Amino acid sequence: MGLTALCPGTFDPVTNGHLDIIGRAAGCFDAVLVGVLENPSKQPLFSVKERVAMLEEAVGDLSNVRVGAFRGLLVKYAKEEGAGPIVKGLRAVTDYEFEIQMAQMNHRLGGVETLFMPTSPRWSFLSSSLVKEVARFGGEVEGLVPDHVRKALVEKMGA
Amino acid sequence: MGLTALCPGTFDPVTNGHLDIIGRAAGCFDAVLVGVLENPSKQPLFSVKERVAMLEEAVGDLSNVRVGAFRGLLVKYAKEEGAGPIVKGLRAVTDYEFEIQMAQMNHRLGGVETLFMPTSPRWSFLSSSLVKEVARFGGEVEGLVPDHVRKALVEKMGA
Amino acid sequence: MGLTALCPGTFDPVTNGHLDIIGRAAGCFDAVLVGVLENPSKQPLFSVKERVAMLEEAVGDLSNVRVGAFRGLLVKYAKEEGAGPIVKGLRAVTDYEFEIQMAQMNHRLGGVETLFMPTSPRWSFLSSSLVKEVARFGGEVEGLVPDHVRKALVEKMGA
Amino acid sequence: MGLTALCPGTFDPVTNGHLDIIGRAAGCFDAVLVGVLENPSKQPLFSVKERVAMLEEAVGDLSNVRVGAFRGLLVKYAKEEGAGPIVKGLRAVTDYEFEIQMAQMNHRLGGVETLFMPTSPRWSFLSSSLVKEVARFGGEVEGLVPDHVRKALVEKMGA
Amino acid sequence: MGLTALCPGTFDPVTNGHLDIIGRAAGCFDAVLVGVLENPSKQPLFSVKERVAMLEEAVGDLSNVRVGAFRGLLVKYAKEEGAGPIVKGLRAVTDYEFEIQMAQMNHRLGGVETLFMPTSPRWSFLSSSLVKEVARFGGEVEGLVPDHVRKALVEKMGA
Amino acid sequence: MGLTALCPGTFDPVTNGHLDIIGRAAGCFDAVLVGVLENPSKQPLFSVKERVAMLEEAVGDLSNVRVGAFRGLLVKYAKEEGAGPIVKGLRAVTDYEFEIQMAQMNHRLGGVETLFMPTSPRWSFLSSSLVKEVARFGGEVEGLVPDHVRKALVEKMGA
Repeated sequence: MGLTALCPGTFDPVTNGHLDIIGRAAGCFDAVLVGVLENPSKQPLFSVKERVAMLEEAVGDLSNVRVGAFRGLLVKYAKEEGAGPIVKGLRAVTDYEFEIQMAQMNHRLGGVETLFMPTSPRWSFLSSSLVKEVARFGGEVEGLVPDHVRKALVEKMGA
Repeated sequence: MGLTALCPGTFDPVTNGHLDIIGRAAGCFDAVLVGVLENPSKQPLFSVKERVAMLEEAVGDLSNVRVGAFRGLLVKYAKEEGAGPIVKGLRAVTDYEFEIQMAQMNHRLGGVETLFMPTSPRWSFLSSSLVKEVARFGGEVEGLVPDHVRKALVEKMGA
Repeated sequence: MGLTALCPGTFDPVTNGHLDIIGRAAGCFDAVLVGVLENPSKQPLFSVKERVAMLEEAVGDLSNVRVGAFRGLLVKYAKEEGAGPIVKGLRAVTDYEFEIQMAQMNHRLGGVETLFMPTSPRWSFLSSSLVKEVARFGGEVEGLVPDHVRKALVEKMGA
Repeated sequence: MGLTALCPGTFDPVTNGHLDIIGRAAGCFDAVLVGVLENPSKQPLFSVKERVAMLEEAVGDLSNVRVGAFRGLLVKYAKEEGAGPIVKGLRAVTDYEFEIQMAQMNHRLGGVETLFMPTSPRWSFLSSSLVKEVARFGGEVEGLVPDHVRKALVEKMGA
Repeated sequence: MGLTALCPGTFDPVTNGHLDIIGRAAGCFDAVLVGVLENPSKQPLFSVKERVAMLEEAVGDLSNVRVGAFRGLLVKYAKEEGAGPIVKGLRAVTDYEFEIQMAQMNHRLGGVETLFMPTSPRWSFLSSSLVKEVARFGGEVEGLVPDHVRKALVEKMGA
Repeated sequence: MGLTALCPGTFDPVTNGHLDIIGRAAGCFDAVLVGVLENPSKQPLFSVKERVAMLEEAVGDLSNVRVGAFRGLLVKYAKEEGAGPIVKGLRAVTDYEFEIQMAQMNHRLGGVETLFMPTSPRWSFLSSSLVKEVARFGGEVEGLVPDHVRKALVEKMGA
């Protein structure tokens, strides 16, 4: 028993920056649920199924972390799963303002709290979209994502 | 006689945050013109006609406020209507930088001043796009927009 | 058993904004330790003893919250008390940058995590120093601080 | 009759950046009251009397601008003078956050609105403290402050 | 011999703000290479060929500046051309955060340094997209871009 | 011959973050002059002489870097030494705004350019004042400053 932190995101694909946040959240809460957002109005590189599978492989050695997927409002998903508070990594000040607005809306809609965890300095420049852009042009992403994600990226891009 | 403040925006749809700014601007200037932008390159949820009508209903009890619509450069519209200064609500620091650039450009193009009014803390998390996203997924928007706007949102989304 | 969140601060004096954060942290963790900083190089309005007493009265009805005081490095205090993660409220983007640097230093010094909780919009303008400035010039602080703090402020200022 | 905008500040000393804001505010409102803050806990370079005199000389050709001085809460001064809204120039994003907090506090304390006017780009780097620092080390401040202020600065520094 | 600074950008079209940065970079380094990005996933107003030609005409009187074009990763282009460090103009704080992430990624990918040069205050409001928006609606862009760029804009928009 | 970059600062004391910037600047310019500011109105922990000596030991293996000291306006020092552009490391967005104002003032006063270099992510949390605070309370600063600086800190604090 106890609190399950909810780490939501698109994870297209998961990076070492995400894993740093998930691992540290796993040390602060009894359990962590990683929630993969399925956004019908966006065109991701990897399907929800692929994103969940890559995450599951990446967090395999963290016994109190599990991975799920959701559509629609995050607060509904939190309620259904009995999860909360929401825990998010934050890289930049610019992100922070938008995230604060989301957090205040989620608090109003569902009484769910959001806690922010600063990204480790060594991953502060890292994002899924930047990783995809680097991979698209043949740059080296080793050390930025887990090895199985690197392989999946090369496969997608090379096809 | 006297100055007419110009409150421009897309208002797709008007929120309680917009109405807070319009009402407070109406207390600082002789008259207020709410200018609804018709942007041909964007796909709004509500037509200009619908947006103007929703605004007119919402500001009905403010005797020195009227609603209009415009295309193209804001400074031209301000000149044609004899309105100025421009008054805008500001939520976040990130908005502020872009808005300052617009204000400086408008000053150069037409000598029109822009004044910023900080959003009331209770609406600081509110935006038209967040309201639409909540409504799209069946979340409750009561208290975030006027009641006739809430009904219009439900109708659009439910169709 | 479980995790004790540590809410550090100067609390000179505690405001309703601080209490909002402490109360919400108490809902996210098994226990909360409020740590009052005794900074020998600063001249506070209230002594550490007074600040602790005002906090204890203010959190009296929160059964999983206790109040303590510390000098020196926060990470040492966290270790001694077996407390962590650190939980801090954040009002502004400007605060955020300094706090992130502190969080990264504390992580390096003692492996302690810091989680940030956005201040409720209704208290976003509130700080101990602003409250003291208002009280100093005879402004009304009712509703900004608990009633026993308001009385203590009037007494200090009036003397 | 009509609204009197209140432009508060320390003006130690007035710069061309301040005068740009005051002049533009004078074009947006019926009248402008420039309020010079007498802050007993700070050690200004120029006395309140000197600061008011320098301002009066600088705004002499703006017929709807007058200069006054105040101590204590700005909202009390606004009430006493029948002035409002408050109009402030803003240079930087960092200033903006603090100013928003002050504006929200002033709204709560006295129902007074605050409007922000972006500093003209050509004065965006200018502040009273930077001008004093330049003058202190013998740098040229011509073109940054009115000529009578430049002379007063040289006199103070040279003594 | 010596260092060649690399000024990358989309330049769709080049503005007086870009030229200010390029000219000042030309005074700080032995040579400057202006690198025009050909981004296949974006729809520019002017072709790469047109953008390069407009730049070449604009920098014609700067003897140590040349213009090139590239696709893909900036660090590869820098390596191929033996150019570095990267020099970028910065207008706003919001830009700065994204640019810092790019700079850190480029440092990791290719060991290339990035130096930022603050935009001159008089161009702080200027961007290619704002210029295009003004031109699209018949606003005057004289003084914001070189004259040959102004003509090219009018031609494109008028067609 | 060629350009000498000027890296100014208080360096009280020099940290590994400063050395990272100085070393990278030494790779971008023909020579680097590190300028230690002697600010008579501040009370540093180390004298100018000590700060210069610590820097000289720290940069001893960089053949194109030398260390000096100055009082008063930075632009005068740059002129006297024939140095420029100014190169500064930047950690945070909040720093950036103040630094941009200084850069614009220095450009106006002396035509001197300023270039900013983003601090390496691993030192983004590091500042002289934070190092002194940690050392003051007996925290470990190994790995944050060069070893001879660590010893000097311990000596000063322990006395």
